[in-house]
Amino acid sequence: MTAPDPAPRRRADGARTRHAILQAATGLATTEGLEGLSIGALADHLGMSKSGLYAHFGSKEELQLATVATAEGIFDAEVVAPTRAEPTARGRIEALCERFLSHLERKVFPGGCFFAAASAELDTQSGRVRERVAEFLRGWMGRFERLVREAQEAGDLDPAEEPAQLAFEIEAYLLMANNAFVLDGDPLALERARRALRRRLSQR
Amino acid sequence: MTAPDPAPRRRADGARTRHAILQAATGLATTEGLEGLSIGALADHLGMSKSGLYAHFGSKEELQLATVATAEGIFDAEVVAPTRAEPTARGRIEALCERFLSHLERKVFPGGCFFAAASAELDTQSGRVRERVAEFLRGWMGRFERLVREAQEAGDLDPAEEPAQLAFEIEAYLLMANNAFVLDGDPLALERARRALRRRLSQR
Repeated sequence: MTAPDPAPRRRADGARTRHAILQAATGLATTEGLEGLSIGALADHLGMSKSGLYAHFGSKEELQLATVATAEGIFDAEVVAPTRAEPTARGRIEALCERFLSHLERKVFPGGCFFAAASAELDTQSGRVRERVAEFLRGWMGRFERLVREAQEAGDLDPAEEPAQLAFEIEAYLLMANNAFVLDGDPLALERARRALRRRLSQR
Repeated sequence: MTAPDPAPRRRADGARTRHAILQAATGLATTEGLEGLSIGALADHLGMSKSGLYAHFGSKEELQLATVATAEGIFDAEVVAPTRAEPTARGRIEALCERFLSHLERKVFPGGCFFAAASAELDTQSGRVRERVAEFLRGWMGRFERLVREAQEAGDLDPAEEPAQLAFEIEAYLLMANNAFVLDGDPLALERARRALRRRLSQR
């Protein structure tokens, strides 16, 4: 008889370490920026060696891409998934806005919305990380536009509204709430977005 | 007879160099960030020596503070000053919004609104540079709030509006226009903000 192959346990340990690194990285990215996410800084933060981190990611860009993917998963679980059971498109729009504001209030990411921070940082750059962040934001905006159209078809929103215009205004209140709340720490910014949304969505 | 004292000319040259450095720095800060504004990077960009730059600013923080002050002057000249002749508060609100959107369109700063970029970068930091940026943004929001109140007193805006709430919504459209325009380069984002503002300001 031979000893059991230790590889499966090593792979499981490796996956756990990778998970821990990426959880720390998504938080750090919202306060220090994705560019501030050097392998050296992250190794210091986690008390790991730089070579240990390199073994997991190989390059700063791979680390950044894996961090964005992790943030997408967290955002989906905290903001998008809890709204999937909403029976109407109109209800889903309102639930998505409320879950977004709640994820700011609960400080799911310490520096506010991960994607607002990443977009503000990378908007003038080029490369795969910027493209992935831009793609995520297009999907987020596109979802509101589709839901507005569905709510119009169901008779729950004014059919005269241009869906992309209403999506722009909804997203404007959410973005403003994020920036003001992170800068001042005053939850009144979240309440102002709620009031703006209620008013805007009740217009005929 | 003695030769004329060369000091005045040296001081004038020094002021010109300082001006050139700060013009470059305000542009770079909107694409690389205020933290990316290292004396070394700026010296490379300008083809100057690091020691030459140190002679002007002494520290990275002093360079950043002088850059923010320069950006304030540019923003005032490009956005605020041209609206001072507006005869009514309501007209001034509309003119400030239009000048803001126009300064984005004309790429006064290559990375969009200097203060939106600086705020997104520094919101989770501490220190004098962050405080100065936050102070500027409080002044910008406070101006809209005051103008809403004046427009209400003049009978040009619904007296039932809460001034701070309307200022929040106006600023939301402007911020969203900035972020979307810098990320996608599509001037439709500016037009969406104009439509949102027209609609919002015409409500009774």
